[in-house]
Amino acid sequence: MEIILARNAGFCFGVKRATQIAFEAASRQSTTGTYTLGPIIHSPQVVNRLEELGVKVLKDLSSIDSGTVIIRSHGVTEAEIAEAEEKQLDVVDATCPFVKKAQEYVKELSSQGYDVIVLGDYDHPEVQGIVSYAGGRVHVVASADDVLALPAMKRIGIVAQTTQALEHLQEVVTAALTKGAEVRVYNTICDATSVRQDEARALATTVDCMVVIGGYNSANTKRLAEICKEIQPHTYHVESAENLDGSWFHGIERVGVTAGASTPKWLIDGVVERIAELSKDKKD
Amino acid sequence: MEIILARNAGFCFGVKRATQIAFEAASRQSTTGTYTLGPIIHSPQVVNRLEELGVKVLKDLSSIDSGTVIIRSHGVTEAEIAEAEEKQLDVVDATCPFVKKAQEYVKELSSQGYDVIVLGDYDHPEVQGIVSYAGGRVHVVASADDVLALPAMKRIGIVAQTTQALEHLQEVVTAALTKGAEVRVYNTICDATSVRQDEARALATTVDCMVVIGGYNSANTKRLAEICKEIQPHTYHVESAENLDGSWFHGIERVGVTAGASTPKWLIDGVVERIAELSKDKKD
Repeated sequence: MEIILARNAGFCFGVKRATQIAFEAASRQSTTGTYTLGPIIHSPQVVNRLEELGVKVLKDLSSIDSGTVIIRSHGVTEAEIAEAEEKQLDVVDATCPFVKKAQEYVKELSSQGYDVIVLGDYDHPEVQGIVSYAGGRVHVVASADDVLALPAMKRIGIVAQTTQALEHLQEVVTAALTKGAEVRVYNTICDATSVRQDEARALATTVDCMVVIGGYNSANTKRLAEICKEIQPHTYHVESAENLDGSWFHGIERVGVTAGASTPKWLIDGVVERIAELSKDKKD
Repeated sequence: MEIILARNAGFCFGVKRATQIAFEAASRQSTTGTYTLGPIIHSPQVVNRLEELGVKVLKDLSSIDSGTVIIRSHGVTEAEIAEAEEKQLDVVDATCPFVKKAQEYVKELSSQGYDVIVLGDYDHPEVQGIVSYAGGRVHVVASADDVLALPAMKRIGIVAQTTQALEHLQEVVTAALTKGAEVRVYNTICDATSVRQDEARALATTVDCMVVIGGYNSANTKRLAEICKEIQPHTYHVESAENLDGSWFHGIERVGVTAGASTPKWLIDGVVERIAELSKDKKD
């Protein structure tokens, strides 16, 4: 059986950077404690490894008054940063630089009097962080229809959650042009998502089975799995090698493997090795 | 025979204003001469009336060193304004305020370092005027395809010729989002055009014949005639009552009449009266 790994499977730039920052902070072994505000990335396995090194995940800052707090890759709200600074915590910012840009643009647009539209998932921590930087009116939209339901505005500023599809942004901007005389768009979409999706699409068409690796809480991994499943019904979303089932590979000649942007290399390697073993078991 | 006149047939706000300004200037009878730089509006009949009052149409300012120069409704280039001021001419600005806005936005965007895209007809005097206000790179595009043929840019500023369709602007902006990380759009489209087109469309479906009145050099009138002809093949574009042909109205029960944004009321009244006469002649 042949196992083909997608070229850009796994960590994107921002996740790789955040993970490195977190492990470095963990290695410093602060005597006052090291924390992340929310999971550092959407990978339970990475979060577990950090916990083993003593890095605790906090839901909010209410329980601590000292220590090192690492800001997650998706960013946090402006109020949470302010709270951390007020408490004089040692803040280590692992926010993805692309997410940071989106936060800064929202702050700038808002301070210049724009009504701000954020294209994204309202419940996603990245969006909640971005939105918090608006000083004035801000609207989170998931589609062009959401924009059409907004009242008329004068000056509209638009940013997007970094993982959105460009076509969605284009539709939202098209709708916004019916709502205001000035529309100023910062395209904050990172191509890591589309690169992984395009590769997954191409790979899924050439294999008999697809394995997509990543946190079950990772939106981009879930989307990768959906995309593959549309093309190749034998698609399986796993978090690690433990989730693999030997029966999936009976009679399979080519397996494609890809992974979400928050999936570490060691998890991918583990899955690839285990698939090879399972295929060997079958032959024995 | 019933004659139905479209509610918003004829002069738009900017044309009405420019015509009033020109006739006022003509009535002052400057001893050093009164001129318009290009035709004041795209109506040969209005231009002729002004010429009868002594207002001459100039192609450029090379032939005069004194006098009153009226800036046409479509605007002129920044260099022409500068030349008029340098020659200490008495400048009377009849530029449509909506066109003026587009000129100002281009100047502002350009001074802030944006690559400027102007959606419009390259050869139209309005566009040539607007474009002249860019201090840096500026591209005139007629479609989204023209945008896709441009190189990648960092910051893109977009304005439109005031008579463009919103859908065209939306398509151009959608394309621009693939070309630059920031896209700032000033929707400079005036709804006078779409209001006249929507009314013409509605009227054309309810009549047996359409008469569209306006200068043969008027782009918006030509477009109105095209729109009507698609719905009602018996559509005729005339400049004045003299162009009407009695045979057009044989066996016709309902005639729709509309007029471009540069068509004066007296020309519309003349056409409506003449159609009524032709219909009467037929009955006699």
